Amino acid sequence: MDDMLLPAIQARYACRRFLPDPLALEDVASILEAGRLAPSGFGLEPWRFVVVGDADRARVAEACFDQPPAATAAGLIVIVALVAQLDPQSDYVRARFDAEARGAANEPVYDAYRAVYRSDSIAAWAIGQCNFAVAHMLLQAAHLGLASCPIGGFDSTLLARTLHLPDGEVPALVLAFGHCAHAAPERLRKPLA
Amino acid sequence: MDDMLLPAIQARYACRRFLPDPLALEDVASILEAGRLAPSGFGLEPWRFVVVGDADRARVAEACFDQPPAATAAGLIVIVALVAQLDPQSDYVRARFDAEARGAANEPVYDAYRAVYRSDSIAAWAIGQCNFAVAHMLLQAAHLGLASCPIGGFDSTLLARTLHLPDGEVPALVLAFGHCAHAAPERLRKPLA
Repeated sequence: MDDMLLPAIQARYACRRFLPDPLALEDVASILEAGRLAPSGFGLEPWRFVVVGDADRARVAEACFDQPPAATAAGLIVIVALVAQLDPQSDYVRARFDAEARGAANEPVYDAYRAVYRSDSIAAWAIGQCNFAVAHMLLQAAHLGLASCPIGGFDSTLLARTLHLPDGEVPALVLAFGHCAHAAPERLRKPLA
Repeated sequence: MDDMLLPAIQARYACRRFLPDPLALEDVASILEAGRLAPSGFGLEPWRFVVVGDADRARVAEACFDQPPAATAAGLIVIVALVAQLDPQSDYVRARFDAEARGAANEPVYDAYRAVYRSDSIAAWAIGQCNFAVAHMLLQAAHLGLASCPIGGFDSTLLARTLHLPDGEVPALVLAFGHCAHAAPERLRKPLA
């Protein structure tokens, strides 16, 4: 089985502390591109990727309660869920559905979307969709020989303020990248059966 | 950039209609293994993978409103979110946190989990977590040269009944796999900027 399994899946693990070695810019670009190519429900790609600049790093780490992977990572990318844009009446949805229809009528996808859209649950849905992009980015990092850690524990309000997110955009996850300061831990997983 | 990007990410697309050619059993096993190795919040792996047997295929496709990818796929796997198991008091959570603590005290992770657990939002969270496993499985299929399609539109109650899911388990997504009956479509994505 092992030689059949995608090498990046086998290589990825959650790094808990990073070395200070900087990331190459082209590696960051390639990680972003991997996220951009992720699938999403209705093709809505309800995300935005914010690369944290040097000026904001300490405050983003603070919003992550200074957890070691956030505080030590050479690179931080915040995956932001585009919640307000998902209103069926938005220009954003129209643009995505026009693209998805590939020149045909976009009404069937609109009808399907209106049937499932709920304003009170769309934020959780959008945040969950971001996990597709996150998984791609984590595997792309592994493919590049980089370590990574997804960080789901943060002060969402503080993080949104630090990044100057507009209303209707919600931080979904913080991704820490870099060269890991420790060896890959033994993998813990439930058995398949 | 292209040669730096994970080949499976570049190869994956949503196949809308599959050929009847059967899947190799070892390919199905390898797709399941890829899902098993996915990351998850708190290491809770709140999922179960149900490989749909021949006897249930037509009814699962029906629960997916007979959408062509569901109706034509050689293989269907339902990703099921383990919602009830995520109660902080459950034996399931205890077992995962004991494993995650790697012999140390599991209280810090319990404290963090209790601080964010909400019984009224845990289902949406668990379903969103399943997207990590789904992304791994889609990329693993691409790595094996197989086409795939994630299907999010289904009658959840009918699907749960068809699969005899116990209370507290919720279908998150249906994955269709096989050999695609059409060429990869032109890729549609928002630009990076």
